[in-house]
Amino acid sequence: MSNKAGIPQGTRDFNAVTVQKRNYIFNTIRSVFELYGFQPLETPAMENLDTLMGKYGEEGDKLIFKILNNGLDNPAKQAQVTADFQKVLEGKNTKGITERALRYDLTIPFARFVAMNYGQLTLPFKRYQIQPVWRADRPQKGRYREFYQCDADVVGSNSLLNELELTSIYATAFEKLNLPVEIRINNRKILAGLAELCGGLQVMVPITVAIDKLDKIGMEKVKEELASKEISPEQIAIIEKYLSIDGSNTERIAQLKNLMQENSTALKGIEELEYILANHPKKNRAQVIVDFTLARGLNYYTGTIFEIKAIGAQMGSIGGGGRYDDLTGLFGVPNVPGVGISFGVDRIYDVLEELQLFPEAVQKGTKVLFFNLGTAESAKAFELMQDLRDRGIACELYHESAKFDKQFKYAEKKQVPHVIIIGSTELTEGTCILKNIINGEQKTISQSELASQLF
Amino acid sequence: MSNKAGIPQGTRDFNAVTVQKRNYIFNTIRSVFELYGFQPLETPAMENLDTLMGKYGEEGDKLIFKILNNGLDNPAKQAQVTADFQKVLEGKNTKGITERALRYDLTIPFARFVAMNYGQLTLPFKRYQIQPVWRADRPQKGRYREFYQCDADVVGSNSLLNELELTSIYATAFEKLNLPVEIRINNRKILAGLAELCGGLQVMVPITVAIDKLDKIGMEKVKEELASKEISPEQIAIIEKYLSIDGSNTERIAQLKNLMQENSTALKGIEELEYILANHPKKNRAQVIVDFTLARGLNYYTGTIFEIKAIGAQMGSIGGGGRYDDLTGLFGVPNVPGVGISFGVDRIYDVLEELQLFPEAVQKGTKVLFFNLGTAESAKAFELMQDLRDRGIACELYHESAKFDKQFKYAEKKQVPHVIIIGSTELTEGTCILKNIINGEQKTISQSELASQLF
Repeated sequence: MSNKAGIPQGTRDFNAVTVQKRNYIFNTIRSVFELYGFQPLETPAMENLDTLMGKYGEEGDKLIFKILNNGLDNPAKQAQVTADFQKVLEGKNTKGITERALRYDLTIPFARFVAMNYGQLTLPFKRYQIQPVWRADRPQKGRYREFYQCDADVVGSNSLLNELELTSIYATAFEKLNLPVEIRINNRKILAGLAELCGGLQVMVPITVAIDKLDKIGMEKVKEELASKEISPEQIAIIEKYLSIDGSNTERIAQLKNLMQENSTALKGIEELEYILANHPKKNRAQVIVDFTLARGLNYYTGTIFEIKAIGAQMGSIGGGGRYDDLTGLFGVPNVPGVGISFGVDRIYDVLEELQLFPEAVQKGTKVLFFNLGTAESAKAFELMQDLRDRGIACELYHESAKFDKQFKYAEKKQVPHVIIIGSTELTEGTCILKNIINGEQKTISQSELASQLF
Repeated sequence: MSNKAGIPQGTRDFNAVTVQKRNYIFNTIRSVFELYGFQPLETPAMENLDTLMGKYGEEGDKLIFKILNNGLDNPAKQAQVTADFQKVLEGKNTKGITERALRYDLTIPFARFVAMNYGQLTLPFKRYQIQPVWRADRPQKGRYREFYQCDADVVGSNSLLNELELTSIYATAFEKLNLPVEIRINNRKILAGLAELCGGLQVMVPITVAIDKLDKIGMEKVKEELASKEISPEQIAIIEKYLSIDGSNTERIAQLKNLMQENSTALKGIEELEYILANHPKKNRAQVIVDFTLARGLNYYTGTIFEIKAIGAQMGSIGGGGRYDDLTGLFGVPNVPGVGISFGVDRIYDVLEELQLFPEAVQKGTKVLFFNLGTAESAKAFELMQDLRDRGIACELYHESAKFDKQFKYAEKKQVPHVIIIGSTELTEGTCILKNIINGEQKTISQSELASQLF
């Protein structure tokens, strides 16, 4: 059977350079998570369909990749399977056809894990998780059907210290990546207070949904959308005033206090923001910026919300998160509060490329190619190569005796910086020619000096 | 919606300790692959169903997890979808219902990648790949539906140097893991020669299939199976003699040469084995052992075959591989020879546990817990903690002001080795109490000494 080779739309192969650059991002973030006492968790790619369905809204449910049950061609089950399939046609789920699905994010599997293991966990439980997720979104530039998420969450604690720690994780990780960012924060209690001023909590969802679009659609369209949700012109004027707050963090907070008057919900949110602002270490390069236009689409957030903007790059948010009150209630363990952040690794990758911020050392290829010039010569090369490898130097011996030209070309294509040539003369004399491919320098040295010359 | 939390049969959550131990194995093997000039590749979890079907035999095809297409409830497509589903009931594949599936191994996606990118690759192309695969096998002890494979392959070279390098990779990786192993090798050309002596190449598959079962079913059953394949008693006697070859490597090869007489296919295989034996570095702890009973089930092998046995552990093979002649012919690029090896990570994990070979340092948790004894005290603790983190020490500050007892218990449960206590006295005096939880020692030191005391 001969097939034309291809991969599914919206998925990617990652070659060596890309894997190494991605691992640089993952390893940097991972090391920061661990400095802050977070520990790794890995969950299976597949979850029970029940675990995922109904957690991501109607639109989200449609984007879940479901796995077909095996053995559907079993003749004994044919009638049942046919009946079950009818339900699929009606858009319902049925365990007879599919009972597993691919992870859609890392939050729900984490909630499921916490609920399953709640009795055994040491609280507060701090976990990080770096794994791929899958979504049947329409593929487009920068949007893939398989992509990595990179999350850290603390559950089982209401303390604002967690918000402060997560803010610091963002600052430290982006500092280590050498990427200048702004950490924008807001608080859902302030948005709740705004809703209270505009008719009550029942308008909080339409207000946050509209505010969330401000960047994309602009103020006029936001106002139109609010009007369509039966929010009065006076109320819209308050929201517009809220969205127009500007200046330094101190100025913004003063304006907000003025607008919110004595609304106690909003004041609580302001107090939480002020705690983070007052305690975020001044030495951190990343500034924390209060941004009242920040809403975050997800309705489970209840306190501080975060969003990260890269400075100097054309790119939306490269990270975000927030506090939630009840992560595991969906799985039968109520009242577990928590707060979490996420790094948008694909976007961080693109920004680091755009700003040329990947360190050169990230590309760890072969350091030395030994030329292969015959049986006896290559046996000596093999021996010397093993010694260099024992010292941690990545080496190769060209796979067959071939013309110089061919072996040089291999070294060049693989960007190997050094070649070592042992011909019959060198073999007899116990020497080798060490050539630096980058600057063209070459010298004959004793074979015993080799390791010291390469360090 | 409240669900009882669970995960699909045959899948696992990996907690922090397990992730860290697994990463120790992955990182060790990865570092060796890179020392030998192999470079990473990652392919998507999903492949086109066409890419996978028909590559793993009839049994394998049934174990592929297929992904249900999205949007099957689209009313406009209902008639077509219903017709397509009829084909699923008949055990046929149809793109109308499923056109993607989960990776079943790393070899076929690698072949697909090589075929897709053949013109751009520098040959010989050396890649390693460490990723999960999925199989709808019946779950049982040690057999999972999601598990990692860890492969290295060289394609585009017929040189035996590759076999030698891969043998050395095995030796080096298991030496770094401190796990004593035997590297058992054989050569499919010898098995082909045996088949030629027993009637011709058409009996090679039944002979290798039967030999492959020797460990499990014993010599008598193997002979019965051979007899059932119309292999004559005289031929079975030759095979029995072949399987009874014993002694040192030299003795085994001498006996084999005697048995095979002048069969040129077998002699070529023997020559290849002898090359590896003669050139495998003597200093390597792992011994290479010629094992003529080694067959490897997969029929695409054509030359050297490998299998790894852990010494001193009750466990089957923990690694294996071999040479193949035509990896990418299936995808329209014929005549690409190669050779590859695989590490059985789940089994290696179990053996390292059984023999207690995981180094203690693998478990990298929080090193220091700062107690939280009030607002001013914890602000100082936070400041000192940031300094320790800048120096690479993983720290936490207990999330809220709480009784000593509760904070100690948290440190103990998380196995944090040091706690630091700053109460009002220490705050005034610029000191802190440093307590070692493991040996119970505690001392009061100046806050400025903290970092030096912890290194």
